[in-house]
Amino acid sequence: MSVIYNKVALIGLGLIASSIFWSSKRGGLATEVSGYARSQATRDTARRIGLCDTVCDSAIEAVKDADLVMLCVPVGAMGQVAQEISPYLKPGCTVSDVGSVKAAVVDAVAPHLPGGVHFVPGHPLAGTEHSGPESGFATLFDNRWCLLVPPAGADPEAVAKLRRYWEGLGSNVDEMDPEHHDLVLAVTSHTPHLIAYTMVGVADDLGRVTDSEVIKYSAAGFRDFTRIAASDPTMWRDVFLNNKQATLEILGRFTEELFALQRAIRVGDGEELFDYFTRTRAIRRGIIEAGQDTAAPDFGRTKTGQ
Amino acid sequence: MSVIYNKVALIGLGLIASSIFWSSKRGGLATEVSGYARSQATRDTARRIGLCDTVCDSAIEAVKDADLVMLCVPVGAMGQVAQEISPYLKPGCTVSDVGSVKAAVVDAVAPHLPGGVHFVPGHPLAGTEHSGPESGFATLFDNRWCLLVPPAGADPEAVAKLRRYWEGLGSNVDEMDPEHHDLVLAVTSHTPHLIAYTMVGVADDLGRVTDSEVIKYSAAGFRDFTRIAASDPTMWRDVFLNNKQATLEILGRFTEELFALQRAIRVGDGEELFDYFTRTRAIRRGIIEAGQDTAAPDFGRTKTGQ
Repeated sequence: MSVIYNKVALIGLGLIASSIFWSSKRGGLATEVSGYARSQATRDTARRIGLCDTVCDSAIEAVKDADLVMLCVPVGAMGQVAQEISPYLKPGCTVSDVGSVKAAVVDAVAPHLPGGVHFVPGHPLAGTEHSGPESGFATLFDNRWCLLVPPAGADPEAVAKLRRYWEGLGSNVDEMDPEHHDLVLAVTSHTPHLIAYTMVGVADDLGRVTDSEVIKYSAAGFRDFTRIAASDPTMWRDVFLNNKQATLEILGRFTEELFALQRAIRVGDGEELFDYFTRTRAIRRGIIEAGQDTAAPDFGRTKTGQ
Repeated sequence: MSVIYNKVALIGLGLIASSIFWSSKRGGLATEVSGYARSQATRDTARRIGLCDTVCDSAIEAVKDADLVMLCVPVGAMGQVAQEISPYLKPGCTVSDVGSVKAAVVDAVAPHLPGGVHFVPGHPLAGTEHSGPESGFATLFDNRWCLLVPPAGADPEAVAKLRRYWEGLGSNVDEMDPEHHDLVLAVTSHTPHLIAYTMVGVADDLGRVTDSEVIKYSAAGFRDFTRIAASDPTMWRDVFLNNKQATLEILGRFTEELFALQRAIRVGDGEELFDYFTRTRAIRRGIIEAGQDTAAPDFGRTKTGQ
């Protein structure tokens, strides 16, 4: 691998930013990586564990001379950060982000950026339920997709360079427009997260009644939901507030289907249930064939050494 | 380990039965294990892979002289199997099952069993999304719960023996009554499965529209749902038809909460969302502390070798 950007600045030092740092180091993709986090405790942790070549005490300091500025803060904070750093951006640099919502981020960030700065928003489809500066690791993006949503008229060279950087981090890269991104992600990520949060909340209410039996007997199914529902609350609050339309649209379809299955249960229509469950089973195979998950039973967490 | 039952008969040879066989072998818990499956193909596979000491061509033959008969068929087939084998059961033997629903199984099976036969229904809280005779493995039950629901007046010695057998298979064993079991499982397993099936179904409808982008970009969240929704359709159809009341009750609560969160999104109530997501995050910690799941990010399927 060779250096793609001389200096990269990471604004926000959570799971994604820290993974970018370790992965960027692994690939030798940047000569220098600076970082900034709003919280003093996070900056202290970053310094202690060697996260970033330089940890700065202000975003302004971090972006100085940076060729790529990556906004890795919650979606709701993107606009304010962009406003703060914009006068200090190096002419000709690229500003990108890693937010899970794209149209709202484009609307919040683009108006603040000066001419001559390239804005190429992005979204790596990768993560875990853990968060914070110590949760990152170099392989997070390997073989996962990163979606770039360059605005109309974006500089092709700036886009191509960011693409090479993400490929260097291990990702496969695709481009699409922000609205389409937000709809696809409402289906594959946002609505599933909301549903998992809800189911875990319901179980929690009942768990108190049944003296933590819900936790004790958490069978597969619920266990998986609790992992999803353990994701960062700030990040997810911002996702739902900023991808409102698409999430509500998919939730509407979800509720409709759920009511149909609920009715099938109530009236005892076994054929409808069986057909539905057979159809969904095939989708799992599609995902495994697409290389986006493991075929090992139970994600491999069950040892099958027979 | 020492022999607990001289002869064990497994009726039905899917994931659970095949795991019982391998685990029983591992522990030396039975002198002989016979097996029967309705399908010729399944019996052929069992013979080919050495599943069971004897594979029989009828359930009647399999249960002959068995000290423990384990019904490992879908919940909806339990009653019919019990009726078929009951005249051929060894006096004093124990009949148990592994169904995910207990009250309906008790109602379906108990009336067929002759006096002098001990009926001790059970449910191992273990499984994967795979099914069939080749999906079992010896460690499936290790450190997972098995719930026994002995009827009032059950022979204490028969219950204790079955408990020792499940402990030998690796499980922790608890007892509860069938109705309570069905409510707890509706929360921890049945409703989460229905929700996952529904979400995957919705995505499938949209996936066809968006040219399989839903599969290609299946981020965490949806990927987890597809694993759950890949479970055996026959088994799950029977679960919902036979745990109707509890499932509908929990679905009602789920929908209520989902509508509350949906409303919070619509009106932009970030505080409500944040508080809800913070509460559910704590539950994950409870499950990990209870030893019922791994703390590794993403169930450990992501390599974190940093």
